[in-house]
Amino acid sequence: MTATSAFVTNLVISFLVFVVLFVLFLILSRRPGNFHVYYPIRALRGEGPYGRKRGMFQWAIDAFKATDEELVAVAGLDATVYIHLFTTALEIIVYSAVFCLPVLLPIAATDKNNVEQKAIQGENYTYSDFDNLGMGNIRPNSPRIWAFLIAVYWVTIVTYYCLWKSYRKVFQLRNSLSASAVARPQQYTVLVRDIPATEKHESRTEQVDAFFRRTHPAAYERCMIMHNFDKAEKLYTERETATRKLEHAEAVFELSRKAGGDGVRPMHKTGTLGLVGPKVDSIDFWTKKIQELTPLLEEERKVVAAESKEDAALVFFNDRLAAAEAAQSIHAAYALQWQVEPAAEPRECIWSNMHLPAWQRSIRQPVVYVITFLTVVFYMIPIAAISALTTLENLVKLVPFIKTITDIKVLNAILQAFLPQLALLVFLALLPKLLLALSKAEGIPSQSHIVRAAAGKYFYFMVFNVFLGVTIFGAVFSSIQGFKVLIKQGNLSVSKVVELFGAKLPPVATFYITYVALKFFIGYGLQISRIIPLIIYHIKRKFLCKTEREHLDAWAPGPFSYHTSVPADLLIMTVTLCYSVIAPIIFVFAFLYFFIGWLCNRNAALNVNVPDWESNGRMWPHIHNRFLAALLVSQITALGYFAVKKFPYTVFLIFPIIATYAFYLYCKRNFYPSFAVVSLEVASQPVKETPSTTTIVEAYTPTCLLDGDKFEDAEFQDARSNMTSRSNSGITSPAERNV
Amino acid sequence: MTATSAFVTNLVISFLVFVVLFVLFLILSRRPGNFHVYYPIRALRGEGPYGRKRGMFQWAIDAFKATDEELVAVAGLDATVYIHLFTTALEIIVYSAVFCLPVLLPIAATDKNNVEQKAIQGENYTYSDFDNLGMGNIRPNSPRIWAFLIAVYWVTIVTYYCLWKSYRKVFQLRNSLSASAVARPQQYTVLVRDIPATEKHESRTEQVDAFFRRTHPAAYERCMIMHNFDKAEKLYTERETATRKLEHAEAVFELSRKAGGDGVRPMHKTGTLGLVGPKVDSIDFWTKKIQELTPLLEEERKVVAAESKEDAALVFFNDRLAAAEAAQSIHAAYALQWQVEPAAEPRECIWSNMHLPAWQRSIRQPVVYVITFLTVVFYMIPIAAISALTTLENLVKLVPFIKTITDIKVLNAILQAFLPQLALLVFLALLPKLLLALSKAEGIPSQSHIVRAAAGKYFYFMVFNVFLGVTIFGAVFSSIQGFKVLIKQGNLSVSKVVELFGAKLPPVATFYITYVALKFFIGYGLQISRIIPLIIYHIKRKFLCKTEREHLDAWAPGPFSYHTSVPADLLIMTVTLCYSVIAPIIFVFAFLYFFIGWLCNRNAALNVNVPDWESNGRMWPHIHNRFLAALLVSQITALGYFAVKKFPYTVFLIFPIIATYAFYLYCKRNFYPSFAVVSLEVASQPVKETPSTTTIVEAYTPTCLLDGDKFEDAEFQDARSNMTSRSNSGITSPAERNV
Repeated sequence: MTATSAFVTNLVISFLVFVVLFVLFLILSRRPGNFHVYYPIRALRGEGPYGRKRGMFQWAIDAFKATDEELVAVAGLDATVYIHLFTTALEIIVYSAVFCLPVLLPIAATDKNNVEQKAIQGENYTYSDFDNLGMGNIRPNSPRIWAFLIAVYWVTIVTYYCLWKSYRKVFQLRNSLSASAVARPQQYTVLVRDIPATEKHESRTEQVDAFFRRTHPAAYERCMIMHNFDKAEKLYTERETATRKLEHAEAVFELSRKAGGDGVRPMHKTGTLGLVGPKVDSIDFWTKKIQELTPLLEEERKVVAAESKEDAALVFFNDRLAAAEAAQSIHAAYALQWQVEPAAEPRECIWSNMHLPAWQRSIRQPVVYVITFLTVVFYMIPIAAISALTTLENLVKLVPFIKTITDIKVLNAILQAFLPQLALLVFLALLPKLLLALSKAEGIPSQSHIVRAAAGKYFYFMVFNVFLGVTIFGAVFSSIQGFKVLIKQGNLSVSKVVELFGAKLPPVATFYITYVALKFFIGYGLQISRIIPLIIYHIKRKFLCKTEREHLDAWAPGPFSYHTSVPADLLIMTVTLCYSVIAPIIFVFAFLYFFIGWLCNRNAALNVNVPDWESNGRMWPHIHNRFLAALLVSQITALGYFAVKKFPYTVFLIFPIIATYAFYLYCKRNFYPSFAVVSLEVASQPVKETPSTTTIVEAYTPTCLLDGDKFEDAEFQDARSNMTSRSNSGITSPAERNV
Repeated sequence: MTATSAFVTNLVISFLVFVVLFVLFLILSRRPGNFHVYYPIRALRGEGPYGRKRGMFQWAIDAFKATDEELVAVAGLDATVYIHLFTTALEIIVYSAVFCLPVLLPIAATDKNNVEQKAIQGENYTYSDFDNLGMGNIRPNSPRIWAFLIAVYWVTIVTYYCLWKSYRKVFQLRNSLSASAVARPQQYTVLVRDIPATEKHESRTEQVDAFFRRTHPAAYERCMIMHNFDKAEKLYTERETATRKLEHAEAVFELSRKAGGDGVRPMHKTGTLGLVGPKVDSIDFWTKKIQELTPLLEEERKVVAAESKEDAALVFFNDRLAAAEAAQSIHAAYALQWQVEPAAEPRECIWSNMHLPAWQRSIRQPVVYVITFLTVVFYMIPIAAISALTTLENLVKLVPFIKTITDIKVLNAILQAFLPQLALLVFLALLPKLLLALSKAEGIPSQSHIVRAAAGKYFYFMVFNVFLGVTIFGAVFSSIQGFKVLIKQGNLSVSKVVELFGAKLPPVATFYITYVALKFFIGYGLQISRIIPLIIYHIKRKFLCKTEREHLDAWAPGPFSYHTSVPADLLIMTVTLCYSVIAPIIFVFAFLYFFIGWLCNRNAALNVNVPDWESNGRMWPHIHNRFLAALLVSQITALGYFAVKKFPYTVFLIFPIIATYAFYLYCKRNFYPSFAVVSLEVASQPVKETPSTTTIVEAYTPTCLLDGDKFEDAEFQDARSNMTSRSNSGITSPAERNV
């Protein structure tokens, strides 16, 4: 069968790519020169490279052995929760396969539906060897279908059990962090939005003080009104850039002096991208720039402190129990005013969204939802249109300077040919960024929530465009022959079409097995070998990095990209559950995908990725619900497919669907509240040392308003001690995260 | 036209009935002997009947003049909220009619669609004069429809404005009561359910104490564990009955002695209904019974106090701000445990539902919903079946003693004829009681919530069986001729059927006008004349009442029956809004209905009905949402009807539908939270005098565990002061309600 051989070829090639990349990893990761790329967390801890004695597979053993608690200590709860996605998926797959593989495969393989259909329908009926291992090979209304019915119940129960166990585990980890004796600033802080207009005689601060002194007489400490500091931030960023350029220029000058003589003072052009404009002395230029920017920034800080007070505030309490309770209460009679919610961790605050009024948020949200819906459904159409329009001629008109490139004939020809495909790729790669921007536009005030919202949108996009798209279009296209036959026979009815579709579902499963195989072999090969960061690191180190800070940036590992990886993994799980009973062989490939993913991501969490922020595992309910949705889709698919097989007891498949809804409600009511807020039981655990209010206020002061001793606002004057949890480079030392 | 004359006849007859009843009221209410029936609130206040000088219509002037605040003071906020239903409906009707009547009626009356259709379709097309005043008389795709489109927008905006104004008014009344300086027990109390199992060494009380001391160290005062006191309650009720019987027997004996001589000691038979069994001396019998029951009750009280502690408790705080905050917080990490909610007023607590565990509530609710759904949809079927089965022969077999009646030939014949109809009537009258019982079975712990739930169910029943039933079946039956024509022409398509239905909608409006007219003329006539309570009162006073308590019971006015009246009024409003634009003449009848209702109910609130409990206006969001649902139904109906009229700009009717949803969300977010809980801003208002914990505990102790100084539970030992807010007779003096 050609279908089978193509499938095997695909599998072998991608497996070979994976093996090559994996071997590269094993070799390269042991070279001390690559230490910073493969073990950045050790580097941040100040520990040196491992010695030669360390076994080649020691990393895998370490990854295997690490407990949840160790993972939380090194990588934070968010990364642990992400890895739990893999653990849970693996558990579901293994427990399900224990029944499905030994029971269903022989039952399917020994039936002869495909052969018989082939005999009846002739060339219109195509199937591969793999299809003989699925439910497609069972004759309609065969008693063998009972085994598949039991399998649906088995998979359902197994999934409930594994999901429940994982939710409870994550729940316990989160609560033990929240109850930890080491207090953190966000535990004493709530975000208050939609503060009504002030009375004439009182200031915003007085107003907030009066309100919270009345509603929380014992626990209220102080407040911090939100400012609009966009301009200050812009000035600060400019000054930071200038500082880095100056450092770079000085380092270059120093090197050239060391090389001999007076050295060469570095020069650069001031125009676009340093390509045009007058040439200037870099050190002088950037020094002058900093001297110009500093007083401007000072001025702007004073303006911010004095004016531009928004109708939102952070409110600080002297007790985390009181803060937890306040964050759950309706404060004002008009509940749209004085809306209180738990404050996000300082590092993940989105300052520009924190002061959006309620009416704006309630308009932004539906608008973003509509845009997302249109994006999900019609994304392919504008891409195709734009790819068609992006000809080289149009491009030259827009960006004249690339004319130098297009004048070369060979390049011109290549570009002409690949530009549309390139545009397509660029647009698909831009999608996650677009979804992040859309989620931010909703008015969500914390980074982790934005990531969750974007992940949700990306999941819908993939379910619609990949899963449904391929399943439906795949089934339609592979059924065209069948349609033609039916039309010729004048026999085209709804039931016939449903039957035809049903017959084509298992072959589509083969496509997904290929998809899964490709995705995990290539994807995880790239991830674990870190071949691209490695190349970039070495290029940067050789040619670009001159200062200490630039070296650090060259190997900065960055955080996990949950907003793309979570939905991708969940899509695989959806496909797996959906075909679990119809084509149980998918378990083998799904197991490989999640197992290698589990190992790679544990290694990444322990040795590589460093989080920008920590939401204390708030991603789990999101993952849990999508696991359950996948199960529901699988149950509905089974219901439809069993009906297509004319099985008279298909009605029994309605109970698992009801049970899934009940299980969803149970988890939502039992576990979810502890993810949305902190329960009083947890918040009332004793604290080793209550942090001082100044510490907390400083933690919540945006960096651009803080550095130096210059910010004059009365609210910040006592905020002077050093906070370790804020970090501009996005890198925190593991020691900090050990709290 | 016969349709018109039948309609007028109907109207005139019911109007005459109303006039008769109203005149009866005017005359009878002025007789001092009826004072207790027409002015029970004055009687409870201890004030005497009005003198002869009082004008005949003074009651109406008083009802007119009373402000919301006065109503709240006399009748409580719940009654005021019920009257607000009428005020709001009247406002909507008047403002809408200001546009619809003068503009739409002439536009409709001067068109000729009905005449033309009659000419085309002949006998199959019937219409009344009233139908000429509705949109049915407009030709398809006429520019006149623009006026009706504008009317939809006008009615929509008017409804938003009136609903918003009313919600805000009720909201302010509720908050000013909650913020009142006179504190009430429920403000210091929360209900805690789903308390987990105790540790071995600790008692339930210790467990609750420990948990709340930790989570509310400053404000927690004490707790009261829920008991299962069903048996004690039964004994208590038996003893109460015996006490009353004894009082009655003693009064009878006293009277007979006064009549002369030694008097006759009253005797009675002990068997069923006092008809069979041995004859005994009543005074001796009931005295002995009380002597038997008292020690049993004492014994049972001790058992209750010592054992049968449930996993629910009332928790008391020393501060209403702390209690309000606690009632809104997630207490336990596992959120299904230690579920906290605001406690209901003591008088409306449903003790038997307060300790139901979460899993039971979550099963009871869907089960009740399914039963309700089946009841709503299929109620008519079993009724019809049972009516058919209730023949006299069957009845005689079941209840032999009615054979004495059936032996009389004339009665037999009458019963034979009317029994099925009687069964139907009895079953329809039983429905509200069934719905109350179903709502109680859901596990709702407060009386007011049960009433709201039952009102909601009854509303669905009426919308389905009266509104939809009549509209759809009415339209189908009156279209049968049209169907036959279409079938003959071989021209039966979906669009034709829709067209046919559309043509029949306005005639159905005539039916509703009759329905509204009948309902208000007869219903309000009966309500204001109080003719039935009056007759019962006089019969009881003459023949049955011997003791003081029996006299009181004979005229006890009872509370409003919100669970039947609210849905009935809302149904009328739904019909009114639904036909507001299609047949604007309905405004005239709706105005009369709500105006007379407004006057009658204000009179009832000021002079007659006495509430059993007070939920502080929690009914309003329920009413508000159903008003909005009625508006939505009217907008959707308009959309459909405009489409039937082939109006090309019908698409403009989509925006009001979206706006209605937005308005719903706005009200829900802005006002509703203050109805579900008490906001901290309100709860933090100063209190004149904080009630002592013992007062609060006693208010929450069920009567059967309280009377005398005998209840031994340590929890109740310090609860001795007298609470005025509990009242077994269901009658509270207005002075109490003045808080």
